This record gives sequence, structure tokens and C-alpha cells, in this order.
Amino acid sequence: MSAPAPLSPSAHELLDRHAATLAAATEALAARSYYSKYPESPSPRVYGETAAADGVAAYEAHLGHRYDALADQPGDGTWVGAEVSPYGPTLGTTYPHLDVDAAVAAAQAALPAWRDAGARVRAAVCVEIVDRINARSFEIANAVMHTSGQPFVMAFQAAGPHAQDRALESVVAALVEQERVPASVVWEKPGRDAPLRMQKDYRVVPRGLALVVCCNTFPTWNTYPGLFASLACGNPVLVKPHPRAVLPLAISVEIARAVLRDAGFDPAAVQLLPEAEGEGLAKTLAERPEVAIVDYTGGPAFGRWLEQAGAARGALVFTEKAGINSVVVDSTDNLRGVLGNLAFSFTLYTGQMCTTPQNVYIPATGVDTDEGHLSFDEFADRLAAAVTRLTSDDAKAVELLGATVNDGVRANIEGLDELAAEAGGRVVLASREVTHPAYPEAVVRTPGLVAVDVTREDVYTQEYFGPVSLLVRTASTAQSIAQLRDTVREHGAMTAAVYSTSEQTLDAARDAAADAGVALSENLTGAVFVNQTAAFSDFHGTGANPAANAAYTDAAFVANRFRIVTSRRHV
Amino acid sequence: MSAPAPLSPSAHELLDRHAATLAAATEALAARSYYSKYPESPSPRVYGETAAADGVAAYEAHLGHRYDALADQPGDGTWVGAEVSPYGPTLGTTYPHLDVDAAVAAAQAALPAWRDAGARVRAAVCVEIVDRINARSFEIANAVMHTSGQPFVMAFQAAGPHAQDRALESVVAALVEQERVPASVVWEKPGRDAPLRMQKDYRVVPRGLALVVCCNTFPTWNTYPGLFASLACGNPVLVKPHPRAVLPLAISVEIARAVLRDAGFDPAAVQLLPEAEGEGLAKTLAERPEVAIVDYTGGPAFGRWLEQAGAARGALVFTEKAGINSVVVDSTDNLRGVLGNLAFSFTLYTGQMCTTPQNVYIPATGVDTDEGHLSFDEFADRLAAAVTRLTSDDAKAVELLGATVNDGVRANIEGLDELAAEAGGRVVLASREVTHPAYPEAVVRTPGLVAVDVTREDVYTQEYFGPVSLLVRTASTAQSIAQLRDTVREHGAMTAAVYSTSEQTLDAARDAAADAGVALSENLTGAVFVNQTAAFSDFHGTGANPAANAAYTDAAFVANRFRIVTSRRHV
Repeated sequence: MSAPAPLSPSAHELLDRHAATLAAATEALAARSYYSKYPESPSPRVYGETAAADGVAAYEAHLGHRYDALADQPGDGTWVGAEVSPYGPTLGTTYPHLDVDAAVAAAQAALPAWRDAGARVRAAVCVEIVDRINARSFEIANAVMHTSGQPFVMAFQAAGPHAQDRALESVVAALVEQERVPASVVWEKPGRDAPLRMQKDYRVVPRGLALVVCCNTFPTWNTYPGLFASLACGNPVLVKPHPRAVLPLAISVEIARAVLRDAGFDPAAVQLLPEAEGEGLAKTLAERPEVAIVDYTGGPAFGRWLEQAGAARGALVFTEKAGINSVVVDSTDNLRGVLGNLAFSFTLYTGQMCTTPQNVYIPATGVDTDEGHLSFDEFADRLAAAVTRLTSDDAKAVELLGATVNDGVRANIEGLDELAAEAGGRVVLASREVTHPAYPEAVVRTPGLVAVDVTREDVYTQEYFGPVSLLVRTASTAQSIAQLRDTVREHGAMTAAVYSTSEQTLDAARDAAADAGVALSENLTGAVFVNQTAAFSDFHGTGANPAANAAYTDAAFVANRFRIVTSRRHV
Repeated sequence: MSAPAPLSPSAHELLDRHAATLAAATEALAARSYYSKYPESPSPRVYGETAAADGVAAYEAHLGHRYDALADQPGDGTWVGAEVSPYGPTLGTTYPHLDVDAAVAAAQAALPAWRDAGARVRAAVCVEIVDRINARSFEIANAVMHTSGQPFVMAFQAAGPHAQDRALESVVAALVEQERVPASVVWEKPGRDAPLRMQKDYRVVPRGLALVVCCNTFPTWNTYPGLFASLACGNPVLVKPHPRAVLPLAISVEIARAVLRDAGFDPAAVQLLPEAEGEGLAKTLAERPEVAIVDYTGGPAFGRWLEQAGAARGALVFTEKAGINSVVVDSTDNLRGVLGNLAFSFTLYTGQMCTTPQNVYIPATGVDTDEGHLSFDEFADRLAAAVTRLTSDDAKAVELLGATVNDGVRANIEGLDELAAEAGGRVVLASREVTHPAYPEAVVRTPGLVAVDVTREDVYTQEYFGPVSLLVRTASTAQSIAQLRDTVREHGAMTAAVYSTSEQTLDAARDAAADAGVALSENLTGAVFVNQTAAFSDFHGTGANPAANAAYTDAAFVANRFRIVTSRRHV
């Protein structure tokens, strides 16, 4: 190939600066051991005495202003933005609305130099981006809190260091994958007289432009894996934020562009394309022939459309949609642990995680525990009591619950009684209105629980996104496990869990989870929750059931984001 | 997971027997160095004095008979088969037509034990299958010759050892991929008091049933990669042969089933589903919800339908369709080598390879060579003379040409004059009828060449499958390279080649090939041809242009044929 332009001194420096990180992260990814580069504690001892206050100030400086740091993008002259915090305040930040043709052209123009930089330079540039994102974790945490409704500490951790670890995981997964094929080999085939010898050069080429369609609830956590996987493989990325969660991605894209520029690359390798309400920009972008990769988190209907539209023109589409997360409760030797763990999972961010359990299968014959045998109703009531205990103090509860993100979630809560009546079930725990001490306008609700019979598949195979969980009365644990397998297989799930003291039952649950293609958490009674996964070790999603066609982050998530083009000649 | 049934002694033995092969092949795949397990020479010194005669006898024993060795499949009571050799004779072999519901059910029933055997046992079983296929190479060569029309030596090599090497490549690629994630780890997160410790088990689960839709021209070479990649990843495989090329796959599937049975597995993990003419069985099977993976080689229209139908329900679809393979001729210091090499590529199997060059871009200003400067017409005529020389002796020519496989190919040859007239071009070389000394009924034709102007994109961006190549007169080599890039990007190509003595021109061609996503062969003048790729080193296809969405065999070809399901618990 023609010699690429020489690397900038800055790009050289990044290669050195991040070599150790890339080595350590690569090792962790292969071992699937514990690894975290970015401290999850928002403590002043970690991030500095003024970090929290500086973060608030930086966030507030965006409010009511144009996001000028992105004004160098190819705008069409209009500015858009209508974000309203789930906690009440209107953000009032506006962002340049891009001319799509110009943005696509700019991304395409950025491709050759980014491609020819090579996998390792790209990885080093990406780590620098993530590092600089980390330095703005408090600002991003405030932005995520006030767009997603996440409580602050969760917004800091999940949208900050945890999302950054997932970003780094994606970068090293992409790097490892690109470096599996050598850059050049001499191939020598024994011959009758002399051997046949050929030099073969293998060149990594990106697929083309990548589009990331982002969601409202996890604007960074669910965006970074696709964004960094595509970027690290050489594909310029168009970031299409959810109209209600633009700011966290504006900050992220601003940083990415600055790092690219500093390293001597065209910042158009990452662009932010915010949209006006109702514009349908994701569809417009997904239909562009230049877009070769789409990453999507959101509702199933549009996800399926993307998958089909993508296939129609050969694009690669990664989707995370929705499912029916399920728990089987059989028996336990730590009832308090079970109740506390499940109550926390229901409560965290008002159940608005794609990983929050919805269906809890409990046998009608009851549950053997270290506190004696509990009937179905007794167990249900104990679970309700645990949730009530966890959420009884408004000031403490809001730090777990956050705020409800949209009217769909609120409607699910409002419909709890109706749901129970229609299903011939019982409201085991009503959802309670919580008043946020600092944000009285925030709509904050505690989780509600409804008991239904196993025969009402029509009810419990619907998704009730938000703080609604169903306690499904089954004939036996065997039936619970069968229902978990069958409903997940058909409707998908991001998570599954089982509680049992019986090895045989755990085995059966593992087999059911394998059949259904869903990851299984067993007997979680402590500080690990079914709705949380750890970068570098836990896969998020499996790609093996309808909830998602991919996992963060396995080889299949990165291996097809680039292709290898060989040139060969005799030597 | 529940303990799988203990391995049979035979499966244990296979693990030992093939450990060294798996190690050597794994190493070769990573290094992309020369590796071949199966000798390509049909010499009696390699395969035994009686191998050739035994192979003919074994082939002939199938003629006019039911293929009883597959009668244990769930047939519907009817037998199908209407193969006629492109060399003339009717085969008269019939095969059990399966009950689709029963075949799907049998495949599903075979899945759990095959899944739970684990990646390494599956790989060892697959190597045993390929070894036993190798032992029947002469029989398969005769079957391929008389279904595809390939000449015998090519049928032996390409459908035998070369296809077997590709099969082994697929097996080890799948094995390596499955073993990248450890089976189990202990994850330990530092904590304030004690660390959090969890055991995480990662289980490889197949996607489901796999379908391979096979082609007429390369019934084994294009089938084995998908078949063995899916099987090695735990997916039971339904093999749907082309109705005109059933026998080579009947033999292959018979062997696979025997090995599975011997190793203690359900032979339904591999089934052959032949169809009656016009039945459309591939479509029926591709629409089954149980089918999660489809591998396809064939025409673009059905390939696109498969891609879209697959996406509609989340199936993974690998397609190799068709394209416009292209050559740029700029200059050479070895004119005889260029002419001989290109003439051979046009002639081999009457140009009926998906890799045969179709468009040769030559500048109107001519070509500098070691025999002086040649005008466009002089070069064209020298190329025609080289083809004529190579094919002048009927008895020798048929050993390269083989026989034309179908009426579409014959129509392309018949239409040569018309094509030239419509394109305002010149027939540089007319196709000649060759009489096969042994098979007078075979329709054997030499390649034809037509010169057309670069303005006639409407002509040279059509595919003329078979012995029709177009010499495209361009304004300059720069235009030749631009046309190669643009036509391949839009219409696809499996191969590209360039001849030039200028490093600058070679660089430009490499960049164009990278832009277009096609592998490039440079200055081939000896015993390596643009239409041939070597397993373990050369990728077949790139997946980066419309001709194929995948490559034999990269990580992307195998990584998504299985998924990982985690179970985790505190320890």
C-alpha cells in the first residue's frame, strides 16, 4: 500500500503512554479476570477534593447554552435540543443540527487516514479518549442523572467508570481481533524443484461508516461499546443520541474529536447528530448506503426494522432490545440475603434497567428457607416487606430509585391495579409515591409487585418496563425452570437468576439457561446483583435469545467490524 | 451444567489420534503459513497403486442404484435423483427424500449431546470425518467430475485434498474461537474488607440448526467450510445439495454420519436433504424457525433473499454470490509469463470458477513489455494466441477445460458475437468447440475474448459466467485502476490482479483493492493463479464487497456460530 502520512508526534506519544494499559487490559480480557482501569468510587480521595463541585459547575455551564464545542461539525445552521430532566429542570442546551450529506461526506473523508493509521495507533487514540472522558466523569454523571433520571451515585458509576471500562474492553477486543492476522508473511510451498514462495500482506480495512443509535436510560454505558468497537476497527462513527439524552454524548463526542485532532487525525471520525423531536433521523441515517454498521439499544420494533433494513443492503446490525428477565426461587439457606438482593435489584433506578428482573417464578408449594418453610404468599409478602424496608425513607429511597424516565414507565406503574385485576392476580405490593427532597417535580415511585398464576402467560410474557415485577405461581420448581426456558427462548431476556440449595435444581437451571441462551446468576445474596455485569469478565447479553443479537464484548461483537484484504506476490 | 454422558472410548481415542493435527493446523492458521494435511497429488505413490481404479469402481457402484447408506435418515418414502454428467452419462443414483419435520426434529434431538461434548471432542470428531473423506478422494473426484464437469485432476485436487484442507481450516478456526473464552474462572474484586469472589462458568452453546445450500460447480469445496464450521461449533447441519451435484455430498454425509455414530453421537447431527427438481427445498428449509445459520453458494438473487429472510428472524447468513473479477494490465518484464498465466486462468474449468477473471483492463496506449511496447490490439492478440496454444490439442485441452456445466454457460458462449456487436467491440478470440475423446456428448468449449471500450460499463459490469472474458480498453492505467475499484465496489468480485513493473502503480492498485475490498494478486507469471487460494494462508473472498459477505476462513466466519452462556455464583 502507499505509505500513510507519518504519524504525528502526539500519536507516537499516545502509543507509548497507553502501551501498558493495552497490555494489561488485553491480558484481563483473555483471562476474563477482574480488571478495572477507572475507579468506581466518586470519593474525593480518588477524583480530587473539588471534582464533585467542579463537575456540577461544568454541567451547569451547559444549561441554557449552545454547545459551541461541537460547532465545528458540518451543521445546517439550526440548533436543536429539548432535554428536560426527569428530576424537573429544563436543560435548555442546544446542539448543532448537522447536514446529513455533509456529515456523511466528512466521515468518509476521514476514513482513509484513520484506516491507514493501523490498529495499534487507533487503540492508543481510543484509550486517550476514554481517559479524558474519565477526567470528566462528574460532569457526565450530572448530565446522565438529568437526562436518564438515574440517581447520582449510579449515574457516576454506571455512566462513568463502568461505561469507561466497557469502552476500554471494546477497544482491546477490537485490537486483539485486528492483530490476530499477521501484517505480512512469507508463504513457502514445497515444490519438486524449488519451493513456491509468496509474500502476502494482510491489510485491515474498516467496513465503512458506523452508526450508533443511543438510548435514553443508559446514554453512555450502552453507546460506548459499539462506538469504540467501530472506531477502533477504523470505521468513522456517527453518534445519534436519543433526543432526551444528548448532553452526555455531546461531552463524549467533544472529547473524542479533540483527541483525534490532537493526534493529527480528522475529528470527523466521530460526529454527533442530534435530532429535532419526531425527525426520525435514526431511520434516515440507517438507510444511507454508506452506513455499514449499526449499533442500537432501544425498543424491539425499531430494532427489528434496523436488522431487516440492514440485511437488505449488507450492513452489520447489533441490537439490544428488550426481554423478560426471569428469576426462579426454589429454596435458600439465606432468606434475608435473597430478599435484600432481589429488593435492591427491583429498586435500583426504579427497575428501569434492561437487566432488572421482571418475572419471579415461585412454586405454589412454597419455599424452603433457613427461616422455615414459607408458602407462596408468605414468600411474596416477605419480598414486599423487603422492598418496603429499603424504600421507606424518601431521602434515602431517591438515592436508589432516581426518577422515572418517561410516561411509558409511569403508565406501567399506574396500571398495576388494573393489571392485577385483569390477570386475576393480587397486588402484593403497591407502588408508593416518593417525594424527592431536592427535586419536588420528579416523579419517583417505588417498585410494585403483582402475583399471577402460571397459566397467565398472556400477562407475564409482556414487558412492563420500570418498577413492575410479577410473582408467578407455578406448580413446581421444575415448572418454574421450564417457564424460564420457554419464555426467554421466545421473548428474550438479558438476565436470569436462580435461588436454590439443591445442586440438582441448580444444574437443571443451568441447562435451561443454556437452552434459552441467557446468562444465569445463582444464589446472589450479597453485593453482586443480577442486573449488574462487570466489564472484562461478565458478558452483557448473550446474543442467543431475542433480547439482543450480540454481547458486550465477545469476538463476534468486533470480528466483523473490519475485513482483511490480502495482496500477494512472488518473492 | 448437568454432567454430559461419558464419552465413548472411540471419542476418547479420536481426541488422542488428532491432537497433533489440531495443534499443527492451529499453529499454521495463526501464522497463515503453508500447511496442507492432505496430499494434492493423485499419484499412486501417495494414495496407493489401486486407489485410482478403486475410486472409479466405487463411483460406478453408485450408478443406477439407490444410495442405501443414507436410508437410515428420516425419509418420506420417496427417492429422488436426476443427475446427468456434463460429460454425458446419466448417473441414475437416487437418494432418500426426507420428511422435513422429521429431519428437523432429528437434528434438534442430536443437539444437546453434541453441544455438551465440548469443542475439542467435536473438533477431533470432525478431523476424523475429514480423514475418512480423504480416504475416498478418488471416489469423490469421479463424483465431482461427473456432476460439476470439472476435469479429473482438478476434481481430484479441488474437490478432494484442497477442499479437505479448507474443511480442516474451518474446524481449527472454530476450535480456536471456542477455546478463547476459558471454561471457568474465579473473579476476585478487591473490597474494603474482603474481596468479592465469584466463580464464572462460560459454556459454549450452538446457535441451533445449520443449513448449507450447496452449488453445482464446487459441491465439496464450497460446502465443507460452512458445514464444518457449524458442526464444530455444535450446530447440527442440514446439507441441501444442488440437485445436479448430490453424489459428492451423499458420500461426504455418509462418512460424517458413520464417524458420528462410531464416536457415540447421534448421526442426525449431519443429514443430507436432496430435493426433487423444482421443489424449492432450500427456501422451505431457510424459512424454518429452527434454522439459525445458513451457508450459501450460488446466484445473487437467491443469496439476497436468504440474507433478508435470515435477518427477518435473526438467523446468521453467509453468502457467496457472484462478481466481476478484474485484472489490470499495465506493464511487465515477463510477457510470456503474463500471457501463460492469464490464459491458464481463463481456460481452467472453462472459466466456470467464481474466481475466474472476467474483465481485463488494458490501456489504449498499450503495454510496455520485455518484448517491446505492445499496442492494445497487439496485447489482446498475443493473449488470444496464448489461449489458442494452450487449448489447441483436444485431448490435452479437455484435461484443463472439463465440460460446460449448464445451458447458462453455453448460452454465454453462443452469445459472444452478439455481445461484441452490441458493445461495438471486437471478438478477439472466438470460442472453439472441442471434442472430448472419451465423452463425445460433453459440450466442451475454449475461452472467448471480446474487446470493448471503457465507456461500455453497461456491458462489462454484467457477469458472463463461463469462458467469456472482456478486454476493456481504458484511457490509462489510472483509469483501469479506478474502474477496477468502482466496479468491484458496486458489483463485487472474488479476485483481482494487477500486472505492472511500476511500484507506484502496484501501490495504487493495492489502495484500490483495499478501497474495493478485494484481494489482489500481483504479477503472477508462474504456477500460482489468481483463481486459486491456499487454505490456512489465503482468504477466499473478503466479505468486504457484494460478491460475498464472508471469507474462508477468518474469525468472523466462525465467531458468531456459537454463543457463550455464563453462570456465576459466589465462592
